Amino acid sequence: MKTQHRSAPRLAKRIEKLTGSVARDILSRTRDKDIISFAGGLPDASLWQDLKLPEVPPAAYQYGPSEGERSLRSILAARSQSLGLDASADTTLVTSGSQQGLDLAAKLILEPGSPIILEAPSYLAAIQVFKLFQAELHSLALDSEGICPQALDQLLEETQAPVIYLNPTFQNPSGTSYSLERRQQIAAVLDRHDTILLEDDPYRDIAYGAPPAPPIASFLKRCPWIYLTSVSKTLIPGLRLGSLTCSPELFDPLLKLKQAADLHSNRPAQFIASQMLADPQTNYKRVAHLCEHYRKKRDLMQNCLKSSFSEIAVWDIPSGGMFFWLNFKNDFDLSAALSDALARGVAFMPGAPFFAESKQAGCCMRINFSLVSPEKMEEGIRILADVVRGLQQPITCADSAL
Amino acid sequence: MKTQHRSAPRLAKRIEKLTGSVARDILSRTRDKDIISFAGGLPDASLWQDLKLPEVPPAAYQYGPSEGERSLRSILAARSQSLGLDASADTTLVTSGSQQGLDLAAKLILEPGSPIILEAPSYLAAIQVFKLFQAELHSLALDSEGICPQALDQLLEETQAPVIYLNPTFQNPSGTSYSLERRQQIAAVLDRHDTILLEDDPYRDIAYGAPPAPPIASFLKRCPWIYLTSVSKTLIPGLRLGSLTCSPELFDPLLKLKQAADLHSNRPAQFIASQMLADPQTNYKRVAHLCEHYRKKRDLMQNCLKSSFSEIAVWDIPSGGMFFWLNFKNDFDLSAALSDALARGVAFMPGAPFFAESKQAGCCMRINFSLVSPEKMEEGIRILADVVRGLQQPITCADSAL
Repeated sequence: MKTQHRSAPRLAKRIEKLTGSVARDILSRTRDKDIISFAGGLPDASLWQDLKLPEVPPAAYQYGPSEGERSLRSILAARSQSLGLDASADTTLVTSGSQQGLDLAAKLILEPGSPIILEAPSYLAAIQVFKLFQAELHSLALDSEGICPQALDQLLEETQAPVIYLNPTFQNPSGTSYSLERRQQIAAVLDRHDTILLEDDPYRDIAYGAPPAPPIASFLKRCPWIYLTSVSKTLIPGLRLGSLTCSPELFDPLLKLKQAADLHSNRPAQFIASQMLADPQTNYKRVAHLCEHYRKKRDLMQNCLKSSFSEIAVWDIPSGGMFFWLNFKNDFDLSAALSDALARGVAFMPGAPFFAESKQAGCCMRINFSLVSPEKMEEGIRILADVVRGLQQPITCADSAL
Repeated sequence: MKTQHRSAPRLAKRIEKLTGSVARDILSRTRDKDIISFAGGLPDASLWQDLKLPEVPPAAYQYGPSEGERSLRSILAARSQSLGLDASADTTLVTSGSQQGLDLAAKLILEPGSPIILEAPSYLAAIQVFKLFQAELHSLALDSEGICPQALDQLLEETQAPVIYLNPTFQNPSGTSYSLERRQQIAAVLDRHDTILLEDDPYRDIAYGAPPAPPIASFLKRCPWIYLTSVSKTLIPGLRLGSLTCSPELFDPLLKLKQAADLHSNRPAQFIASQMLADPQTNYKRVAHLCEHYRKKRDLMQNCLKSSFSEIAVWDIPSGGMFFWLNFKNDFDLSAALSDALARGVAFMPGAPFFAESKQAGCCMRINFSLVSPEKMEEGIRILADVVRGLQQPITCADSAL
């Protein structure tokens, strides 16, 4: 026997703040099971069922530069420039997914106790990272156009936060897309304060109507900024590639942090992404096809929700991205709903983990529409409505009697 | 003009401790240039010039589990078990290279001011990570069998360090391989203290003689441990894959840290590695061929060094790994040597960055023998000797007169 009594290992204080991602926990509970999952933010695999990856040349087998392949950085920088960002290949870093961009930004800026401002709700894996770095999380409610610029101004004044994290385009989870005016107002507020804007923009290309307004970072005049993107949503998530573009003074420390984190990102993946993104027209067609595919799924989901949830919840129809965000009119036990739903083969994401401050959490649910097939979507929403109605009306037993 | 006067962005204190890797800086200065580089630790690309990667199935395009693919975890765990580690697939995490293992371990254990014990010299990218996490670095000199167990016992007593970082097998940079007895003695010392062993073992398979003794972690009875490996040295570094196996109580927080760092590692790469490592016999043959190839290079390098450096430096012939470690008998200006050598088309690694405490740094040089072709190796060492002799004997101009 090897194991004798061990005292608990001495770990860093930040580990007390360490939470797993609820989404990934649910994903791992549902993996390899025949479950209808509205829980994650996974692309529809049918989009790439016939896709063969380009052959990777042996030159990509060797160690490579920490900042990423020049070809890919140039493509990503050109895209940032086309959105109005003051970007170049020299200020663009290839990351191992936009999640790594969050880790690098947190390392760059956050001390234990650093105030950080974010949206309520916000992206749950970002909340997880900021908590891990022991930041003090302050959040501002979203309305249909974004956070309120005056409230932001006041909170910046009060907290002197060194950083604000926003996901202003087809936000995960709420689907909110900030109006042009609101973006400009927020940029103006940020320019009056000494605060870094961390703008996360993975869903921009998945637009079901007019193209979204330019990034907030494109309107800044003096505020430093970090702009994160991902290829996971529109290309291939398994590649784990994203990018970070930033104002020039932040690039060098971010590059060194990238070196220390994983030396550099997978090179065959960078080669594949460069090949697949190199021709703008091919790429445009591919993304247009993807958007049309997801738009149909969004419309079907809207129809399903309308017939099953319109009496008990309210929501906006998302104009981009991958999620519906339901606000329930009456409170009920969402963890019980999750257990019941999982038992009946359906997964969803409860809203609470998306709120940095629990006082702001309403009774909400995030429902993904990109992954599930049309047939399963109808069945899944019917089961989910059934589960929720059962919990909302504990006295009538009509459902279970059927 | 977008840019107006900006005040310096407010960054975390750890950024003051942020250094780039000297090796990667030299690499990036020498990239795309026709330079003879003894500086990095790059595999010989001729080993894979005819290698075609296995075709990746579309199943690997989707998001995957944070802990890594089961197939790869099982292969890696089996290898750890064969080395005597108390390991299983359940306590094995796929990482984005062993560098990420260092980042995750640092996040798990280090606070600002945490004492950490390491070897002098030690792996420079590990020193970089520990400094970034604001640890207090304490180092113990290596002799030909490793660090001294009594000195370790005393330093653990004095510092109460929560963690020790060791690279006991064909160490980078020194090439030292700890004897079996020393490993057992060190394990016994660690078991008497409440300290986590972080054991980095990327070079184990590159052995030119008898197989090295089992990992120190395999001799532990109660001390918690994290064991890092890499596929970069014997398979394909561009994949950026490594693994971490640990005592069970550390796995859950490390998995959550991995989630927060990059969700999961590149899946096509995991698929490729699983395919290539699946058959032990094929793998054994591939590694044996690689070792024979590198052994010849080591022998050639030894001959070159013997004729050019034996009067001015001492070194051990490495019994594994990728490096010679030269200790010069007289001090001279190594940065001047590096500049001169680069100007003449040769790169090497000065020794100083491998020492956590500068007081311990002698006049040393790390010379890699895996990358450079045999023809270039002779030429490169001749130039390097010429440069060093020029700096060591500034009065005699014999060399430049030839």
